[in-house]
Amino acid sequence: MKYYSFVIAICLLLFVACNQTSKETSEEVKTETTEALASWNEGETKSAIINFVKEVTDTNSPNFVEVADRIATFDNDGNLWSEQPMYFQLFFAMDRVKQLAPEHPKWATQQPFKAVLEDDIPTLLSSGQRGLLELVMATHAGISTDEFAKIVDNWISTAKHPKTGKLYKEMIYQPMLELIAYLQANGFKTFIVSGGGIEFMRPWVEEAYGIPRDQVIGSSIKTEYDYNNGNPIIKRLPEIDFIDDKEGKPEGINRFIGRKPIFASGNSDGDLQMMRWAASNKMKSFMLYVHHTDSVREWAYDRESHIGRLDKGLDEALENGWTVIDMEQDWKVIYPFELAE
Amino acid sequence: MKYYSFVIAICLLLFVACNQTSKETSEEVKTETTEALASWNEGETKSAIINFVKEVTDTNSPNFVEVADRIATFDNDGNLWSEQPMYFQLFFAMDRVKQLAPEHPKWATQQPFKAVLEDDIPTLLSSGQRGLLELVMATHAGISTDEFAKIVDNWISTAKHPKTGKLYKEMIYQPMLELIAYLQANGFKTFIVSGGGIEFMRPWVEEAYGIPRDQVIGSSIKTEYDYNNGNPIIKRLPEIDFIDDKEGKPEGINRFIGRKPIFASGNSDGDLQMMRWAASNKMKSFMLYVHHTDSVREWAYDRESHIGRLDKGLDEALENGWTVIDMEQDWKVIYPFELAE
Repeated sequence: MKYYSFVIAICLLLFVACNQTSKETSEEVKTETTEALASWNEGETKSAIINFVKEVTDTNSPNFVEVADRIATFDNDGNLWSEQPMYFQLFFAMDRVKQLAPEHPKWATQQPFKAVLEDDIPTLLSSGQRGLLELVMATHAGISTDEFAKIVDNWISTAKHPKTGKLYKEMIYQPMLELIAYLQANGFKTFIVSGGGIEFMRPWVEEAYGIPRDQVIGSSIKTEYDYNNGNPIIKRLPEIDFIDDKEGKPEGINRFIGRKPIFASGNSDGDLQMMRWAASNKMKSFMLYVHHTDSVREWAYDRESHIGRLDKGLDEALENGWTVIDMEQDWKVIYPFELAE
Repeated sequence: MKYYSFVIAICLLLFVACNQTSKETSEEVKTETTEALASWNEGETKSAIINFVKEVTDTNSPNFVEVADRIATFDNDGNLWSEQPMYFQLFFAMDRVKQLAPEHPKWATQQPFKAVLEDDIPTLLSSGQRGLLELVMATHAGISTDEFAKIVDNWISTAKHPKTGKLYKEMIYQPMLELIAYLQANGFKTFIVSGGGIEFMRPWVEEAYGIPRDQVIGSSIKTEYDYNNGNPIIKRLPEIDFIDDKEGKPEGINRFIGRKPIFASGNSDGDLQMMRWAASNKMKSFMLYVHHTDSVREWAYDRESHIGRLDKGLDEALENGWTVIDMEQDWKVIYPFELAE
C-alpha cells in the first residue's frame, strides 16, 4: 500500500501520465495492407485506423476534414514508450539525486535523499509527499532551462532500464512510430500531450518520435526570465505551474493547440478526459486506447495497476466503440530494436 | 495624464503588447530584388532581411541553421496590424459591453459599464484599475472557449476602425504578410508572440496572417474543463493566468516553442526582452523593429507614445545594429487594401 501511495504521489509530483487496452473497432472494416503500418498485424484495429484516415482525407467523403483541423494528440508514458516498473522520469529524478550528491554532503544524512542514495525504497516511501516534493524540486528546479535540457539529454543518451538493459529511449513503441508517421503523411499535425514534464521530454522526443519540440505539451514548473547582465536565461523555479493530466489534458490542448483533436491516443484513465474531448468533436474523430496485454514482450496490466491504470477508460472505450489496441495481438514487434534482432 | 494611465492599465489588463523603428542593418548589404518582398522598397532594410535568410539557409555558409531551429517570432499589435488610437482588443471589449448590456440592465447605472454605454471616456477612466478589471472579466470570461471564439469571430468580421472605416482585420501590414510568407518559404516556423489575448487572436490570425492557430502565443485567463454531462466544454474563468509581455515573452516562447528564435520582430519596448532573447542565440539571429514613422498612411509615434512606446528598444537596436524598419521609407504600401486602390 505504501508503495502504491508513493507511486501515485510521484505521479502527481513528477507530473507523469498513464494509459492502456482491450479490442473494439468503430467503423466498417476493410481488410487492407499498407506499408505504412508494417509492424501492425492485419485485423480490426489496423483496419479501423486506416479506414478513419481514408475517410477524413477523402474530399468526396461527407466526413472529410480540412488539413488545419487534422490534429492528433498522443499521451507519452505507456503510450509511446514503456512506463514500468515506474515512470522513467522517476528513474531520472533518482539518478539525478545520486549525481548531485557530491555537491550536497548533507544529503548523506538527510531524507529523502539519504534513502535514494542508499537505494532504500521503504524509507524513501515513508518520507511522504513532502519528501517527494523535495526530491522533485531538488532535481528539476533551481537551474536554467538550458542547463536542465543538457542534463536530460545526457541522461537519456546513457541511462539504461533495469529490466531490459536497453536505453530508456530505445523502449519506444515501433508501431506507434509508424502510426505517427502515417498520420503526418496524411496531413495530420501530431502532438504529445503528457503528464510528464514538458522540459523533460523536449530534448529527445523530436529525434525519437519525429514530433517537433513545439508540439509537445506536458506538465511544468514555473519559470522566470533573468536578463543576467546581458546573457539572458530562463530560470526553473521550485513551484508547480501546470499538471497536464486528467482534466489538465483538454485544458492543455486548448491552451497550446487551440483546436479540438480529431484523433486522440492514450493508455490510461488519465487520458480519459482527452478522449472525451476528442469524442465531442463535431468532426469525425477517432479515439485509440493502448491496452498493455503483453506480459512477455512488455508488461500486462490494466484495471488494478498503480502505474497507467486503465479501468474507467476501458469501460468507456467498450461502451462507445473506441478502438482498443491489444498489444499482444495487434503488434508484430514492440520496440524498434526487435527489428534488428 | 488620466488617459495615459488608463491606456497603460488597459494594456496590462487586456494583455496587449506594443512595438516600433529607425534605420540600420546588421550584415553586408547586397542590392537584390525578390518577388517575395514586393511591397518593400529596395534599400538596407530589405537587403538585410534577404541576406540573413540567404545566409542561414545556405548549407555552405558557416552560419547555416537547420530547419528545426529556424524559429521566427512576431509581436502582433503595431507589428502585424495597427494599434492606434487604442489596442483593437480594447475596442472589442467596449463593443462587447454594449452588446451584452440588454442582459445586464443594472449596467445602465453601474460603473464602469455606464460610462462605456454612454461613450463617456473621462468617467470610464476615473473608474481606475478595479473598474477596468471588471470590464475585462465581464467581456472576456464567464463563457466557454467555443462561445468566446464565436463572439470574436463575429466581431472581427464586422467591426470597423473609427478613423479608417475599414474592418480591423483589414488593417494588417502587407509588407509583414510578405515577410511571413518569405520566411515560411525558406523553412522558418513562424509564431505570433503577443501581449494580446491568445483566444482573442486565434479565431482570425490563421486566415489573416497564414500562421496556424497552435503557433499563436498570447496572454491568457485561467480555464477549467467541465464534463458538462457528456458535452465537455472549457470554461473561461475571471482570473489572469499569464501576461505575455516584456519578461513574459521569453517565458512564453520557452513554454510554447521550447527553442530560442533566430528571428524576432516587434515594435515596442514590450518586445525588448524577446529581442534580447533572440540576440542571445548561439546561432546567427536577426532582430527587427518596426518604427512607426508614417503619419500620413498610418501613425507616427515612438519614444513618447503611450501605446507601443519604443524608447529603450530603439536605443538598444541602434547600439547593437539590429534592423529597424522605417515604415514611411521602407514600405510601398501599408495595408493590403491599398494594392487594390
